[in-house]
Order: sequence, then structure tokens, then C-alpha cells
Amino acid sequence: MPSSSPSPKNKVLVLGSGNFGSCLADHLGDSDHEVYMWSRKKSFVEYFNEHHKNPQYLKDHCFPNTIRAVGPDLPDAEFVKRMDVLLFAIPTQALRSLLTELRPSLGDVNPPLLIFVNKGIETVTNALTLEIIADTCGKDIARVSTFLSGPSFATEIIKRQPTMVSIASLSEHHAERASLVFHQPWFRCYRGNDPIGIELAGALKNVYAIAAGMAEGLGFKNNARASLITRGLSEMTRIGVAYGANPLTFLSLAGVGDLFLTCSSSTSRNYTVGFRLGRGESLNDVVESLGSVAEGVTTAIGLKAIVDGLDVPAPLANAVYKVLHEGRDVREQAQELLERPMAKELELPRKPGGPARALMNKLGIEEERY
Amino acid sequence: MPSSSPSPKNKVLVLGSGNFGSCLADHLGDSDHEVYMWSRKKSFVEYFNEHHKNPQYLKDHCFPNTIRAVGPDLPDAEFVKRMDVLLFAIPTQALRSLLTELRPSLGDVNPPLLIFVNKGIETVTNALTLEIIADTCGKDIARVSTFLSGPSFATEIIKRQPTMVSIASLSEHHAERASLVFHQPWFRCYRGNDPIGIELAGALKNVYAIAAGMAEGLGFKNNARASLITRGLSEMTRIGVAYGANPLTFLSLAGVGDLFLTCSSSTSRNYTVGFRLGRGESLNDVVESLGSVAEGVTTAIGLKAIVDGLDVPAPLANAVYKVLHEGRDVREQAQELLERPMAKELELPRKPGGPARALMNKLGIEEERY
Repeated sequence: MPSSSPSPKNKVLVLGSGNFGSCLADHLGDSDHEVYMWSRKKSFVEYFNEHHKNPQYLKDHCFPNTIRAVGPDLPDAEFVKRMDVLLFAIPTQALRSLLTELRPSLGDVNPPLLIFVNKGIETVTNALTLEIIADTCGKDIARVSTFLSGPSFATEIIKRQPTMVSIASLSEHHAERASLVFHQPWFRCYRGNDPIGIELAGALKNVYAIAAGMAEGLGFKNNARASLITRGLSEMTRIGVAYGANPLTFLSLAGVGDLFLTCSSSTSRNYTVGFRLGRGESLNDVVESLGSVAEGVTTAIGLKAIVDGLDVPAPLANAVYKVLHEGRDVREQAQELLERPMAKELELPRKPGGPARALMNKLGIEEERY
Repeated sequence: MPSSSPSPKNKVLVLGSGNFGSCLADHLGDSDHEVYMWSRKKSFVEYFNEHHKNPQYLKDHCFPNTIRAVGPDLPDAEFVKRMDVLLFAIPTQALRSLLTELRPSLGDVNPPLLIFVNKGIETVTNALTLEIIADTCGKDIARVSTFLSGPSFATEIIKRQPTMVSIASLSEHHAERASLVFHQPWFRCYRGNDPIGIELAGALKNVYAIAAGMAEGLGFKNNARASLITRGLSEMTRIGVAYGANPLTFLSLAGVGDLFLTCSSSTSRNYTVGFRLGRGESLNDVVESLGSVAEGVTTAIGLKAIVDGLDVPAPLANAVYKVLHEGRDVREQAQELLERPMAKELELPRKPGGPARALMNKLGIEEERY
């Protein structure tokens, strides 16, 4: 497919070689950027460079010649400094140690543009990625970091099926730079200035996808599903505002867009976990047969801590938590939700923003909106 | 099914005996309200009262004995004054003449609670229902009218499948009254104070459902569909704000909830029209085989007039209009949309609210938000 990238070509180091990192590397390589994909596995690096295929994900896909695998050692400072862009596509739980290891290589003058596509809340600390960056790399780097998120199945991206994403940063200039790296007619980028909202939406949606799966498993139909997704979005927005995000961020591709995709796809792992719980299986059985824990199962724990800390009403998240982690009956929880008293739609907290304000202080930013 | 309605029982006159009016009458009758359903067709009235079935819609369903059909004449003033609630479930295009005919029966002291469930923009005038009410019944009645809207397939409502709706009014008290009439665990009502936003969302969603159908017909996949729905919601919100609605109203059940349902259902007429156009059929052929024009086809014309009048960017609505009413090629329009320049996400107009302010003036309301 011919490239029509509007930007000058960049040297991009993709950190991570999983499903999503691979498809983004593929897209960038196809746009004629010079792409390096780092893996800690020597066997991956050798296999990829010989066959231009990923042995584990998107196995049948042939990647463009513009991508070279590097590793298993983390590229050295000299290599990192030659890069224009670092794209972080590793799990959130592994990010703190990677950034700590990488920090010395970034330098302090003209560091590469950092783009993060990981989602989720760090366990133990309940930190968002923006905070992990501030902790490990300092406020100057955190303030110009960028976040890419949206409804984006990897299998469709490698086929150049139209895909659209949100790209957010506290720095408008850097959000624009990141957009220029990725933007193509088949991969449209929309810029925003609320990375906290984008991150919360990306993490929380997995919990509501479990709820949507449960509803389907319980035999509820289309009206209930559309209502549940909407009330989930409303609850996410309320939590986001209490945290300090802009409520309109939840209308974004990373918000409602990704929520919609995750809740309406039977291939989503979170949805599947919810569906099988709704059918009456136990979490143990589901986890055992899936071979691993879906992200939302873990996020539900961090979300409960955040919700309790903010003292914000979150009946759906609480119900999901009770079924997942307190062994409560799923049908009983659904019935309790349906029997809640009448309410106003979308009531937002009056004094929002504690955690976001604290994080902005850490970044040395005092903005009216936080 | 046992009733647990939290409110005293009401006498409800349902005006209209179509698909949606019937299922709402069924729900209200099942909640032990005393329900009358008016039809202009003598044969309908006789058939319904003899068989407790609707000969045209939901044909197999047996309606509760608490519902009696009345007509074919419009009930007289004495009858209307005995009612607690009038529920308007007729097409928007027929509303002005019905309200004009009904106005003398409403009286000026303690008129019944008016609940409107029709959707769409009046052709010729481009008026919303709130304005039609003001024109025909005066500002005092318009200010306390209520609007019910949300993701609600009739076939699921008659099975008591969980359903949730938005109920909006400029009068908080009346929104609460309407909620009390309808609310049950299987029919949850959420109150709001932005009837203009609720009405716009209900009308505009049909145009974006056509767009979603077109994308599917063109062969686009899940990423594109989720993105299109999101960008459609963003465009609806932008138009709504330019009109004078609250952007957060588009996060409601009547907003994003109904948009989801309409865009993800192959049984939706608007979606089907879009799908078949996307597959290359002509609008004439589609309309001919469907037997009638889907609502969004007409709404697209009113929407174009509104969008042009407000001078607000609406590339999706414009593309749908061009395919429907200027005979432009659907694939070409899709390609033009994908090739638009990079943009910020969710840019809202800076000086919103002209039409809503004008309408509020008509109602004698000066509120800061308009």
C-alpha cells in the first residue's frame, strides 16, 4: 500500500513485541518510518529478522522490511538517542522498571518523543502511567509524554481497515507531533489535552466490558445492553470527574469508542469473562480455561480502591467487584442494581479533581481545570 | 408479573396505537395504571377491545385487561380532563394538528401531565416538539411538558426485558412525576433537565445510523464502526451545543444509549437503508422494497438546514445528505471523509445556543445556560 504520511520520516523504537505493539510497528513501517522493535527474547529477534513474522501474534502476517527487531538487551544510550520516537507497548505493570532502566539513556536535551499505548492502573500504587513517568523520568518528561488509545483491533490495523484513535498530551505540540507520526487516511488521529481522562477511560472500560458480558450471560437483551453500556459510561465519567478529568473526554474515541468496541465484541477477553460468569461459571474455572486473568479482573481491584478513596457512587463497578472478588451471586447483584431507587441522569461530583490536582502539582502545573 | 409501582395509580390516555405506543401502554397497564389507547381507526378499537391484541404491531402479544381502546373520535374535553397523564406516541409530523385539536380540552387549570415519545424534526418548520407544543398550547404547557427517550425496542419491553430511558423536562418536578408513572425495576427512568438536547439526540441519531449502515455495507469492520459511531456522537454533540443543548446530554440513555442500539442493530430501518446504499443499491430501489422512507432519510434534510443555519462543521451529516439527496457515490464520500486533515477531538462551538435561546424566549425563560 502506498504511503502518504504527511510528516517527515522518523526513527521509531517500539518497546514490546506483543499483539498491539506489533500491529503499530507494522503500520509505522508501512508508512515508511524506520522502525525498530525491541524484544527481551533472543529467539523472537532472530525469527523476526529472518522471516519478517511474529512467531506469537498475528502469525500469518508478513511485516514490512522497514522494521528490524532488536534485543534481547535493552538498546544502549547511543541507540536510544538516535531515535525520534519511543513507543511503549508493554504492560503497565512492567513499565516502572523499564522506564527506570531506560531513564539514563533519554538524556535531558531533546529526548525522543515518548508515546504510550499501555492501559491499566498499576497495582499496589494505583498509579496511572502519567504518574509512573513522573516518578521515574521526572516532571519535564511527563509533561510532554503522549498517550494513544482508541477502538483498535490489531487484526484490522494490519489489514489497513479504517481505524481512529485519540492522542492526548498535556503538551498540545507533542500531541500534534505524535499524531503526525501515525496519521494516515486509514489511521486517523484526533488530538486532546486530557491524558488523565484518556488513561482512566482506557483502564476502566475493561471493568464495564465484564459487566456487559455478565448481562449477556444472564440472558438480558439489546435494550439492557445499550443501557448498561450507557450507565457504565456515565459511571466512568463520574469517577473521571471526581478524579479530575474532563467529562467530555469520555465522549472520545478512547472513551465511548473503545468502550463500545470492547463491550460489543465476543472476542474481547474481558467480555468473555463476564459472559461466562453470567452463565454461572466460577471465576476460577473461567481463569483456568482462559489460561490467564483478563485485565479487567485486576483493574476492578484498583478501581474499587480509587472509588472508595474518592467516595464517588459507582454501583456497577462495585457489583462487578463483588462478583469477581467476593464470590457474590451475579444474578442477585444484577437484581439489586435494577431495584435501586430512581435517580437523576449523569450527576457529576461538585468538588472534583483531588488526585489529578495532586498529580499536576507533582508535574509543577497549576491549571484552572485541575 | 406482579407490580411494584412506587406511585399512586394514574389514568393514562395513550394517543397513538403504533409499535411504541402499544408497548408503553402495555407496560403501564401491567403496572396497574388505568390505560386508554386512542386510535383513529374504528376497526382497531373494536378488534383491540374484543381480543386484547393489536392487529398491526406486536401481533402475538396479549395486552392486559387494564387497557381499553378508545376512538375513532378524539376523546372529548370531559374525558381528557379526567386523565392524569396524556402520552403522545404519534409521528412528529402529525403532532401540530393533534395538539391544535386537543388544546381546548386541556383547560388551563391543572392540565394532565403531558409525556412525548415521538422523535424527529418537523419538516417545513424544522421545529422540535418543544416548539410545536409552545406554538399550539402556549408557553405554560410547554414549560412543564416531559420527554421520554432511550434505547427501547418494543419487542423487548413487552417481555419485561430490562430497559432504561431518559426523561427530560424544563420542570424538574414534572420530570419526576413522569418518572414515577413509568419507573419499575424492568423499566428504569433517569431524569434530566435538557429536553432540547434529548430531542436533538433522538432525531439526529437516525442520520448517524444510516452512516453506520453505509460503513458496514462498504465492508468496513469493527474499528471503523466504533470510530464512526464515536465521531457521529461527537458531531451530534457539536451540533447540539451550537443549537444550545448541554453537551453532557449526549452521554445519556437518549443520546449515546439510543445511538448504540440503532447503530448496532440490523433490524433498524435506518441502519438497513444505509447498509443497502453502502452495498451499491440506489435510494429509490431501497425505498421501494422497504415500502416506506426510513425516518433518517427525511431527518437528513432538516438536519442539513439546521447545520447550514448554525454554520457548524458536520462532515458526516453532510456526506449522508449528499448520498441520499444529491445522488453522490457512497464510496467516494467515505474516502473524502477519511482523507480530511488531522483535527482536534471534540471541538465545541464558542458561542453556542442561538436556536435554544430563541425558543427559551418564546417560553418566557431566561436561563444562564441558554
